[in-house]
Amino acid sequence: MKFTIQNALIPTDSAYAFVDVQIVDGKIAAIAPSLNVIGTAIDGTDQLLLPGFINAHTHSSEMWQRGAIPPLPLELWLAELYDFANLDLEKIYLSALGTAVETLLSGGTSVVDHLVLIPGLEFETIATATRAYREVGIRAFIAPLIQDESLAAGIPSGESQQSHEPYFRSTQATLDIIEEVVKQFHRPDEGVSILVAPTGIQLCSDALFTGCIELSDRYNLCRHSHLLETKAQEKLAQEKYGCSAVEHLKRIGYLSDRTTLAHCVWLSDADIAILAETKSTVVHNPLSNLRLGSGIAPILKYRQAGVNVTFGCDGASSNDSQDLLEAIKIGSILHNITDLDYQHWITPRQAVTMASLGGAKGLNLADQLGTLSIGKQADLVLYDLTNLSLLPRTDPIGLLVLGRPSNVVNSVWVNGKQIVANGKVTTINVDDLRKEIFNHSQWHSQRQSRTVAQLAAHYRAVMGLPE
Amino acid sequence: MKFTIQNALIPTDSAYAFVDVQIVDGKIAAIAPSLNVIGTAIDGTDQLLLPGFINAHTHSSEMWQRGAIPPLPLELWLAELYDFANLDLEKIYLSALGTAVETLLSGGTSVVDHLVLIPGLEFETIATATRAYREVGIRAFIAPLIQDESLAAGIPSGESQQSHEPYFRSTQATLDIIEEVVKQFHRPDEGVSILVAPTGIQLCSDALFTGCIELSDRYNLCRHSHLLETKAQEKLAQEKYGCSAVEHLKRIGYLSDRTTLAHCVWLSDADIAILAETKSTVVHNPLSNLRLGSGIAPILKYRQAGVNVTFGCDGASSNDSQDLLEAIKIGSILHNITDLDYQHWITPRQAVTMASLGGAKGLNLADQLGTLSIGKQADLVLYDLTNLSLLPRTDPIGLLVLGRPSNVVNSVWVNGKQIVANGKVTTINVDDLRKEIFNHSQWHSQRQSRTVAQLAAHYRAVMGLPE
Repeated sequence: MKFTIQNALIPTDSAYAFVDVQIVDGKIAAIAPSLNVIGTAIDGTDQLLLPGFINAHTHSSEMWQRGAIPPLPLELWLAELYDFANLDLEKIYLSALGTAVETLLSGGTSVVDHLVLIPGLEFETIATATRAYREVGIRAFIAPLIQDESLAAGIPSGESQQSHEPYFRSTQATLDIIEEVVKQFHRPDEGVSILVAPTGIQLCSDALFTGCIELSDRYNLCRHSHLLETKAQEKLAQEKYGCSAVEHLKRIGYLSDRTTLAHCVWLSDADIAILAETKSTVVHNPLSNLRLGSGIAPILKYRQAGVNVTFGCDGASSNDSQDLLEAIKIGSILHNITDLDYQHWITPRQAVTMASLGGAKGLNLADQLGTLSIGKQADLVLYDLTNLSLLPRTDPIGLLVLGRPSNVVNSVWVNGKQIVANGKVTTINVDDLRKEIFNHSQWHSQRQSRTVAQLAAHYRAVMGLPE
Repeated sequence: MKFTIQNALIPTDSAYAFVDVQIVDGKIAAIAPSLNVIGTAIDGTDQLLLPGFINAHTHSSEMWQRGAIPPLPLELWLAELYDFANLDLEKIYLSALGTAVETLLSGGTSVVDHLVLIPGLEFETIATATRAYREVGIRAFIAPLIQDESLAAGIPSGESQQSHEPYFRSTQATLDIIEEVVKQFHRPDEGVSILVAPTGIQLCSDALFTGCIELSDRYNLCRHSHLLETKAQEKLAQEKYGCSAVEHLKRIGYLSDRTTLAHCVWLSDADIAILAETKSTVVHNPLSNLRLGSGIAPILKYRQAGVNVTFGCDGASSNDSQDLLEAIKIGSILHNITDLDYQHWITPRQAVTMASLGGAKGLNLADQLGTLSIGKQADLVLYDLTNLSLLPRTDPIGLLVLGRPSNVVNSVWVNGKQIVANGKVTTINVDDLRKEIFNHSQWHSQRQSRTVAQLAAHYRAVMGLPE
């Protein structure tokens, strides 16, 4: 399979150039002006060519509660999410398709799905999501969401003695499932990878973390987890370990150059130094952190400390979108209010690098993805610079990152296979998907969560809020 | 002119209802289920009907530098903006059209354009923008941007003695221009209103403010201004007045129930009490405040103090978009990180009210605009709830505010006249507009601003930044 993109605009060190790009066998073979056409010719005139972005943290099945959950902090939001989750395999399939489509149409070619597993149907859940991602053709990193403690354990106990139900499945049984999942579904060469992905320190024992580390080492898997998303989790880590969550994760060996950590809002300077030292990657989910009131992750500090940072949309009920360009915009400009010195602010070009190469680094694929470089895999996006939302013609990357582009993704290739053309996904029928999702849902308002009502008083007491 | 929207979803006190809406002579005549069809029947099935939002602060001609200005704080950003402004009447026309189109297609039916005037062509600038807004059919509030001090006067002097060039036009000459503009262009009944609109305390003398107050009283005009957008302006007010800018504006009588104040980031609790007491309106421009590093306006405090708040996009080179739904989303969720108590957070329904009725109040039009009420003017928007970005069907207003809706505005009416149908603006040819803007611009990067270079050292010294 060969093709040549002609006359596309690409960023150079500090300006732009018009080039042709040859793709052979899924890889970038040449980038230069006026190349010979090999294979199909693709007209890149008035289009910006960039490496695909990586949606480095999401939970696809949350799509079913997009727009539904009222303004609540994570701990109560989660209770409401769980009360109304009500998943089945059909829903898993449709929301994985929807997540893939929205990611693609906002510049993403890879998605890290911290996937909620239906109890008793763990393999079927993963098989179903895998099928959806393979059908669309997006590069998928499936991170099965596992825990071994019950939901209420995720809220600090404060002064009170709280006892929690044991989790319904043993730690070892969970690890056995993950090992079998790896054997059945981990196919990096085919665009589907499995990650080990304990939910986070708030709901996981050390045994679960260390079991995941062993699997990661044995099967060469990347590691994923939530980390210090909320102030409550910072309190909880102190209660649980007597030290910060980062110190604890370092001690047990979870941090590494193939570990991606979602959120990272409540880290101290000492914690940041540990992330830099262990070469861990921070996945910044700015919209979710605002929506849930979690806080502003200290992204400028991470960058100054040399910590690799990339972007995620987070699940669609804490954002409530899977538009990567929105996450990149807000995840860049949000930090200008945290440092008076504008020389530290993230530039649009830096944001693009974070969203592409930053994600590739975190997934241990910087040699294969994340830049327009000869020999790298052709995960490519062409943006239509004649769209009204990217006009007038000024700085193309400035427009893409700082603007509000809509309908601007003209073409997408993953591993050299075209899966978006003329702004439409070519591999599945998106109109049918839309109708299916419409038919699987019903408008509502004012639902009442039983668990939120149960947990609210304790949460308010622990967080020092009036009754 | 009569028509009936059938079977549309509208919000009720705490849920939704399916209703028909009759519109007669530009006004809402009836809202109830199963009404008779009078005039044309419009199918509202699977659509959400809301009052139009108000883009309550923007500068249309900034569209020409969208995406172009690097991350800089307001004072230096402004220097770069001015260096490359290079406006002519054709550009004024095209950017007013572009601003109107983007506002309409994100749910806005009114725009407040704090319009940059081309020196020597002040009347022609306003005539041109007015022509553009009338052609599109959006309700326009034109607030000619006036000042009587030179740009460098907007930066605090600190310890140093700074002297500034006098402004090129006298205060009285500027006021004479505005009075003549009011006579020629102020036609509220035809959908075009003129506001008095001194730039802000940083660039205006008391004589200019008081002259504007006189015009406002004589001609019944609303008042607009920037207010305390940056920390530098807070310092400047102390240097200039020996008190806060809000205290000073109150003293000279600028604050009133028809005064809208853009930004309001650096206000004290005492200042907030003054805004409440004077019934002034805050126009929240969250994206611009992040992009320029201005800070987070204390919107939850305003709401608790009873201050009316609405939303603006601000000019397209400090945002860099005119998508009102984006401003409403970020302007709601941003504040969740400023108050640990989630009971104070802005709900999606509150955000919709702020964007519609809040804007109408600020423009002294709450009796005519901002709600779906019998007798009010038919400034209406129908949102397509079958669009993938508004699916699955959960809470429609939650989806609209918290999601990232794109291509969801199906129909728009202003004063009962339909100007968007099937997602397309019907009054002008948007494809021609797109081509014109394309042809009037050229891609670039790395331009060097002479004025930024001149001002940077002084700015850094005054703000306590390293050299």
